[in-house]
Amino acid sequence: MREIHVIGIGAGDPEQLTLQAVKALRSTDVFFLLDKGEVKADLVGLRREILDAHLPEGSYRLVEVRDPERDRSAGGAGYSPAVGDWRSARADIYERLLREELGERERGAFLVWGDPALYDSTLGILEEVRERGNVAFGYDVVPGISSVSALVARHRTGLNRVARPVQITTGRRLAEGFPEGVDDVVVMLDAHQAFLRHAQDDIDIYWGAYIGTPDEILVSGPLAEKADEIVRLRAEARERKGWIMDTYLLRRRPGA
Amino acid sequence: MREIHVIGIGAGDPEQLTLQAVKALRSTDVFFLLDKGEVKADLVGLRREILDAHLPEGSYRLVEVRDPERDRSAGGAGYSPAVGDWRSARADIYERLLREELGERERGAFLVWGDPALYDSTLGILEEVRERGNVAFGYDVVPGISSVSALVARHRTGLNRVARPVQITTGRRLAEGFPEGVDDVVVMLDAHQAFLRHAQDDIDIYWGAYIGTPDEILVSGPLAEKADEIVRLRAEARERKGWIMDTYLLRRRPGA
Ligand SMILES: C[S@@+](CC[C@H](N)C(=O)[O-])C[C@H]1O[C@@H](n2cnc3c(N)ncnc32)[C@H](O)[C@@H]1O
Ligand SMILES: C[S@@+](CC[C@H](N)C(=O)[O-])C[C@H]1O[C@@H](n2cnc3c(N)ncnc32)[C@H](O)[C@@H]1O
Repeated sequence: MREIHVIGIGAGDPEQLTLQAVKALRSTDVFFLLDKGEVKADLVGLRREILDAHLPEGSYRLVEVRDPERDRSAGGAGYSPAVGDWRSARADIYERLLREELGERERGAFLVWGDPALYDSTLGILEEVRERGNVAFGYDVVPGISSVSALVARHRTGLNRVARPVQITTGRRLAEGFPEGVDDVVVMLDAHQAFLRHAQDDIDIYWGAYIGTPDEILVSGPLAEKADEIVRLRAEARERKGWIMDTYLLRRRPGA
Repeated sequence: MREIHVIGIGAGDPEQLTLQAVKALRSTDVFFLLDKGEVKADLVGLRREILDAHLPEGSYRLVEVRDPERDRSAGGAGYSPAVGDWRSARADIYERLLREELGERERGAFLVWGDPALYDSTLGILEEVRERGNVAFGYDVVPGISSVSALVARHRTGLNRVARPVQITTGRRLAEGFPEGVDDVVVMLDAHQAFLRHAQDDIDIYWGAYIGTPDEILVSGPLAEKADEIVRLRAEARERKGWIMDTYLLRRRPGA
């Protein structure tokens, strides 16, 4: 039967690959790389670098596919319909890849940014392909260092405070308000600087962009003091590179 | 100046070590192993195995210390005072280790279970030692695969659902109620099976014990159907091994 590895490759630093991931790479016949358009070319580049570093040339096949564009125009909090369409468009592609590009006894792999468990659609799409039942395959998941773990490691801080919870959420959600019942909140996928809404609160921010890469930028301190600096750094970086990838931890001070 | 690596070693599978962690191990002169009493002897064993697998014998020193017992009798939600005492007792030990067991130009390392960012006191204690100012040192943090990432990878599921948040919390907190504003909750440090309080709700559980080790046990499905089985498996495992380490994801069904 066809076998698929879903391999978490870490969030930027090729040394964040685990030994288990290296082993999985080495047992793979065909790698599927999904290109998300020009701005993400750098990210595809890192995946290629990882393959070059760990595998002898000619020992694997590489299949590159253009990812279908997601319709973001739908907007609003309930952007699920567009996500749903996009997901099944992707499932069509995955199904075709598995059927046409992978021999029945071969192993394929998807290299997933960070940890496949966090804000990534690969597992959901594979499950959908499986439920359709048009191609039989098994799969396993190799966990990776997420950008969340990488962020706090670089800031040398924990995610949670002693015996307290931590929430991981999106910029879109944070824009609706600071989550209930937690003082430590990690924010991903924030295109609109939702932290600005909380710049007057008693909150510390631990922010990082391009974490683990040569372009890494880190800023930490009271949000009220650092918000403007982060806005400026984001704009500059975006201008320079054409895209930005950033994550941050907001930590509300006790009693705030 | 003295340098310290705080190295996340993954939550049970020695192959979950990252390449960066292996590099950090290899640049370390002295490893500090804190023994938390008999029941945790297995965990110290895994750390030794990791050292054996990656470092030539005689290339490093190993300093083992008995961890001060934490006074758990204090109890209650606000068990911070006991934690505070215990933390400064630990800071005393760390300070002595750095001063007496590490040469001024040497590198020491603490091997931390899972990811040092999650429910681990090492970073907080090092920061306390640094603030005291009695011994000068620098430190960096190598992120690790947490038991949370390992859990969901084994269950081949994500932590969050599309565009939704996820919370990581403790058994103690879950016992106070299902957290507000989230439907996906990861629970760690649950000695009292707090999930039982929610067994009547419309919730799926993804549970794992000793994840990544040869003793690994996984159960998933509707909590109402699986709760008894998990209680039984926990009791048996605890009986057999003398200690248990388990983590789970509770996923409330949409509209529940
Ligand atoms: C689609 S999600 C994928 C997350 C990924 N699975 C992980 O574990 O990090 C993309 C988001 O991850 C965060 N991210 C990923 N890599 C990052 C990096 N190197 N530096 C900062 N943020 C990063 C950003 O918040 C970005 O919007
Ligand atoms: C003190 S916390 C340390 C967590 C660790 N830093 C991490 O990243 O996983 C200990 C808790 O982690 C969870 N845990 C750690 N290793 C585990 C494993 N191999 N299997 C299941 N749960 C584990 C359990 O919930 C346990 O109570």
